[in-house]
Amino acid sequence: MKIDGKPYRSIWREGEDVRIIDQTVLPHELRIVGLDDLAAAARAIRDMQVRGAPLIGATAAYGLAVALRQGASDAALQAARETLAATRPTAINLRWALDRMAAAVAPLAPAARAAAAMAEADRIADEDVAINAAIGRNGLEVIRAIAAAKPAGETLNILTHCNAGWIATVDWGTALAPIYMAHDAGLDIHVWVDETRPRNQGAALTAWELGAHGVPHHVIVDNAGGHLMQHGLVDLCIVGTDRTTATGDVCNKIGTYLKALAAKDNGVPFYVALPTPTIDWTVLDGVAEIPIEQRAAREVTHVAGVDEAGVRRSVRVTPAASPARNDAFDVTPARLVTGLVTERGVVPASAAGLASIRAAAA
Amino acid sequence: MKIDGKPYRSIWREGEDVRIIDQTVLPHELRIVGLDDLAAAARAIRDMQVRGAPLIGATAAYGLAVALRQGASDAALQAARETLAATRPTAINLRWALDRMAAAVAPLAPAARAAAAMAEADRIADEDVAINAAIGRNGLEVIRAIAAAKPAGETLNILTHCNAGWIATVDWGTALAPIYMAHDAGLDIHVWVDETRPRNQGAALTAWELGAHGVPHHVIVDNAGGHLMQHGLVDLCIVGTDRTTATGDVCNKIGTYLKALAAKDNGVPFYVALPTPTIDWTVLDGVAEIPIEQRAAREVTHVAGVDEAGVRRSVRVTPAASPARNDAFDVTPARLVTGLVTERGVVPASAAGLASIRAAAA
Repeated sequence: MKIDGKPYRSIWREGEDVRIIDQTVLPHELRIVGLDDLAAAARAIRDMQVRGAPLIGATAAYGLAVALRQGASDAALQAARETLAATRPTAINLRWALDRMAAAVAPLAPAARAAAAMAEADRIADEDVAINAAIGRNGLEVIRAIAAAKPAGETLNILTHCNAGWIATVDWGTALAPIYMAHDAGLDIHVWVDETRPRNQGAALTAWELGAHGVPHHVIVDNAGGHLMQHGLVDLCIVGTDRTTATGDVCNKIGTYLKALAAKDNGVPFYVALPTPTIDWTVLDGVAEIPIEQRAAREVTHVAGVDEAGVRRSVRVTPAASPARNDAFDVTPARLVTGLVTERGVVPASAAGLASIRAAAA
Repeated sequence: MKIDGKPYRSIWREGEDVRIIDQTVLPHELRIVGLDDLAAAARAIRDMQVRGAPLIGATAAYGLAVALRQGASDAALQAARETLAATRPTAINLRWALDRMAAAVAPLAPAARAAAAMAEADRIADEDVAINAAIGRNGLEVIRAIAAAKPAGETLNILTHCNAGWIATVDWGTALAPIYMAHDAGLDIHVWVDETRPRNQGAALTAWELGAHGVPHHVIVDNAGGHLMQHGLVDLCIVGTDRTTATGDVCNKIGTYLKALAAKDNGVPFYVALPTPTIDWTVLDGVAEIPIEQRAAREVTHVAGVDEAGVRRSVRVTPAASPARNDAFDVTPARLVTGLVTERGVVPASAAGLASIRAAAA
């Protein structure tokens, strides 16, 4: 998408140089970092300069390609894979991308590996963009239908939670892809951006993305969405998901469930956008079966931002003696989800709905 | 309640000196401020060194008493009233306290007014404590009943939102009064403290109160409560309210409605504690009729705390160009409220339930 009118991806090549946007300093600074060697790529993933499963996968792929320029023996390939795989041990997409890259280059002579790896990384990135664009096109039809039911001249208000935007993917994003397409198509839309405590991905990243691309929005606290829905100020919700069960339960950033409850209580459509590879066909009951990561208490007790002088600082909000608990995700039961927006179409959040696109993929 | 073992009120006398706790520096510093003259009392209210309707009323009462020591003519009385009334123009309890104080002292000779005013302020403070203690006793019975239904040896988990604690009143608080009584009675309780964005009254004030008194607790983000309820980690919710309708709708800090929805969805009892004077008998539909204050966007875009060196700072979390919207309250419909805990008893959140205690008061 665009930053002040100029098109970007979240990872891209300039000739043979690979570049990313350092997301740790957003929204306060746009810092572009080169992935010049294996160490830089590993650092980018480990230090969360890049985040979001698709972007982590693409970064690992480009990282392996860059590493092979330093040395492309079997031993070097294996060492680079291990270094990159260790950066975020639980990121499934990271391992998937490394496996695919290795499968593509290992059969080749070492001298041919680096160039082939770069081409394969390009394909991984392009495929992610294509999937997200398809999600966007399918979601755009949902938005168009809801907009068509509104009185002419009224702005369509969309609420989103966390960041499922282009900088969490290679481009377009998942939940934000339909929003960008609607905006680019000239629809009169406005986005309520949940700040998404504790890590503030909404306040920091989604707000930055939307502002940079020119999409009208307001940041709101996570507490506000229900009130806005009660007063007719939300026409639909669209969120992303980390994992969707075979029955349509949705595991997403903590707080998603509360918004889905409020949407149900107020008759607001609640959509979840996802690439079908994030469907976990082995899980039937999301609340009972999906383990929820507990993260550091410091993310709750401290908040990061910039002071009046523009200096990045972290401040503690809580009493020093008070402990905090930090569950990173929650599960929204399928009964609260209006529909799943995938690259293969929009389907009901149900076993039958999901089975219909599983069959289509087979 | 206690601070590190020593009993306190939020406003108290030491001889003829009136003292408060400066709540603007909590939880990072316990700073006790003397209300030595009218200016100090007006500043305490205006700058929110004191907050919470009952405490604002008591502070205005003591402020008028202190002012009359500087001069007790009819003109001085009137001037002091006006100065104090202007500090928080929309605080109903502030005007109520000033009216009561004036009615008590205006008929007296000027020389007798200061002493009579101090005695009347003491009565206002004592009456607030008595009301809250009665709320606490009534709420304690609710907690005892829920605790009795749990397996022996299991901790009772209570979730609260915002700060309806002793430092929002003269003592005990409203929502926290039953919690303090349960803890003091030896019940095994633990409190989930919603941080309560945007002003963080939970993270800063409720956590401080509970920690200072020794009540086990964890701070959680506002997004987390629904997930905890889904997993059986919340046995009941108790919150305060700024205004309750004649039909049992509850206007309270933004985000209360979302927790009530989650409680309903998970079969968790949801209680609201209130002194009966905060019932607005003229309002029948809270969502439709109660105007919601919109506050400064800066409360959303910026967060205050202390840095590593203990220096109080405010940091901006959002992009500089992103606007924010800040609704201060929301309305929880009566259908989501299990019961109202008042000084006159625990009643259903319904017109009939409220009528029963209105009749009792007549």
